Amino acid sequence: MKLGIFGYGNLGRGVEYAVKQNDDVDLVAIFTRRNPNDLNVLTANVPVLNVSEIENWKDKIDVLILCGGSATDLPEQTPKYAKMFNVVDSFDTHARIPEHFANVDTAAKETGHTAVISVGWDPGLFSLARMYANAILPDGKDYTFWGKGVSQGHSDAVRRIEGVQDARQYTVPVDASLNAVRSGETPELSVREKHTRECYVVLKEGADAKRVEHEIVSMPNYFDQYDTTVHFISQEELDKNHKGIPHGGFVIRNGKTGLNNETNHTIEFSLKLDSNPEFTSSVLVAFARAVYKLNQEGQFGCKTIFDIAPAYLSAKTSDELRKIML
Amino acid sequence: MKLGIFGYGNLGRGVEYAVKQNDDVDLVAIFTRRNPNDLNVLTANVPVLNVSEIENWKDKIDVLILCGGSATDLPEQTPKYAKMFNVVDSFDTHARIPEHFANVDTAAKETGHTAVISVGWDPGLFSLARMYANAILPDGKDYTFWGKGVSQGHSDAVRRIEGVQDARQYTVPVDASLNAVRSGETPELSVREKHTRECYVVLKEGADAKRVEHEIVSMPNYFDQYDTTVHFISQEELDKNHKGIPHGGFVIRNGKTGLNNETNHTIEFSLKLDSNPEFTSSVLVAFARAVYKLNQEGQFGCKTIFDIAPAYLSAKTSDELRKIML
Repeated sequence: MKLGIFGYGNLGRGVEYAVKQNDDVDLVAIFTRRNPNDLNVLTANVPVLNVSEIENWKDKIDVLILCGGSATDLPEQTPKYAKMFNVVDSFDTHARIPEHFANVDTAAKETGHTAVISVGWDPGLFSLARMYANAILPDGKDYTFWGKGVSQGHSDAVRRIEGVQDARQYTVPVDASLNAVRSGETPELSVREKHTRECYVVLKEGADAKRVEHEIVSMPNYFDQYDTTVHFISQEELDKNHKGIPHGGFVIRNGKTGLNNETNHTIEFSLKLDSNPEFTSSVLVAFARAVYKLNQEGQFGCKTIFDIAPAYLSAKTSDELRKIML
Repeated sequence: MKLGIFGYGNLGRGVEYAVKQNDDVDLVAIFTRRNPNDLNVLTANVPVLNVSEIENWKDKIDVLILCGGSATDLPEQTPKYAKMFNVVDSFDTHARIPEHFANVDTAAKETGHTAVISVGWDPGLFSLARMYANAILPDGKDYTFWGKGVSQGHSDAVRRIEGVQDARQYTVPVDASLNAVRSGETPELSVREKHTRECYVVLKEGADAKRVEHEIVSMPNYFDQYDTTVHFISQEELDKNHKGIPHGGFVIRNGKTGLNNETNHTIEFSLKLDSNPEFTSSVLVAFARAVYKLNQEGQFGCKTIFDIAPAYLSAKTSDELRKIML
């Protein structure tokens, strides 16, 4: 399978790492909106090209992985490039998925391409865990806890406060709530009861720590509904201890069966990721394989993780999978 | 969807419970090899029939769920009834799955039926967790821990010992090993390091406890490779505290990504089931829905959990799933 990468940030770099772990996948081109000479890519001999050249690659790439952001890049890029390539994206604005799906579906169907959108872990593997668990235990209650992990959006929000030089925000599940749910209880949990927020903040010289802390903890939607802890640290300490982008979380469904619904079951799926983007990239590459196979079978249009039989993700044959994994 | 049940033990009864939770599923017949009058079924007005009448129901049942055992029932029944019906089974003899698959596939394809075999949680949801995790993190190590839960096979083995009146055997993961793996370590674990076995045994009057205990702990394959604890209790205590059939376990993959494989990730899927058969039955019913849809689309032959797109399991439309679960 010949793969292209569009966009060379953390995700694009992660795709490059993942390709090296998959023998059936070759990286054949990296596209960027920047000057290609400014990119320091990992793979020797792979062409790095400005996006203006992408049309010339129409027949040379089996699947193009779109590594842009969900706010403005992907809503435009995925439908556009689904007209030229089979594509995979990690669009993660949950509320806009139906609209994005429709746009990509039209573009892909018109041109005989296959696309999968919103691949990653949430949306992605977490969605899958919710869906399987709901189909199996229709009478039950779902919980999703995120973290401990870095929220880029919340880190950015803190960095925009006057007097802040740098910041990292961690989302942390509330242990007592997580443990209650894991033990089979089905409490109603408020926003505050599910997660706390921890901020590590580097102040600019002369900034007022009290004011910055107040602005953080009272920030509407981002922090005001949570118990938030603010730690002021040096840039050195932040660089040393908080430069990673870990994340993860827990999807739990507690459900009931039996004559009078008296039997309890807990289904749990969890991730502990040292690098959120590297893991997401690995998911993207597995789904690129699926998209390639689906397209070869003539299954055109837009798919999500719900529409793709698991075996398509694997480099192994169905015979092998039945023998060694079932 | 019109469902039939074949075999009315714990699994068949569990299917009956699950049907009541799924509005799109109707139970239309229960078949048994016993005298139908001996069955005390839950659902009012559902015909209970001897298997000799099953051919008359060929066009009246959308999916037949086979609730027999894997040792002798299913290897014969699933291929046989896949010639008359769409079928689902929970065949769980891992080593014989390729052979069983081939037999069922031939029967179903010849007659335009759809079958899914080996549905449940292991094989089943645990297989799925292994497969997704392996496709996403090709460089990693898998662990499966079972329990705490009742092993019927081991309980039966203890009951066959002379002097034993009744017995229940629990398989228990070794906490230290489970916690090491969950924290991202990738130890090589021996059989003994992964699970312990706990037996609750009721002796017949006059039986020699020392001899029974020795026969249990030294029993080849079943117990000799494990640290086994034997508790002698009264029949009353066994009936009171050990009549349930709980089970569950953990599927964990620790994998690596990054430039030099220096980034660690842990993917974990776990189940805690108060009733092993009731949960398995709920999985069977969700896959019966999938089999029905696949057959309507003309997708004939035998499938496994790897071959079925997740959305087929749900009573919800793809639009709804994208909106509320992705």
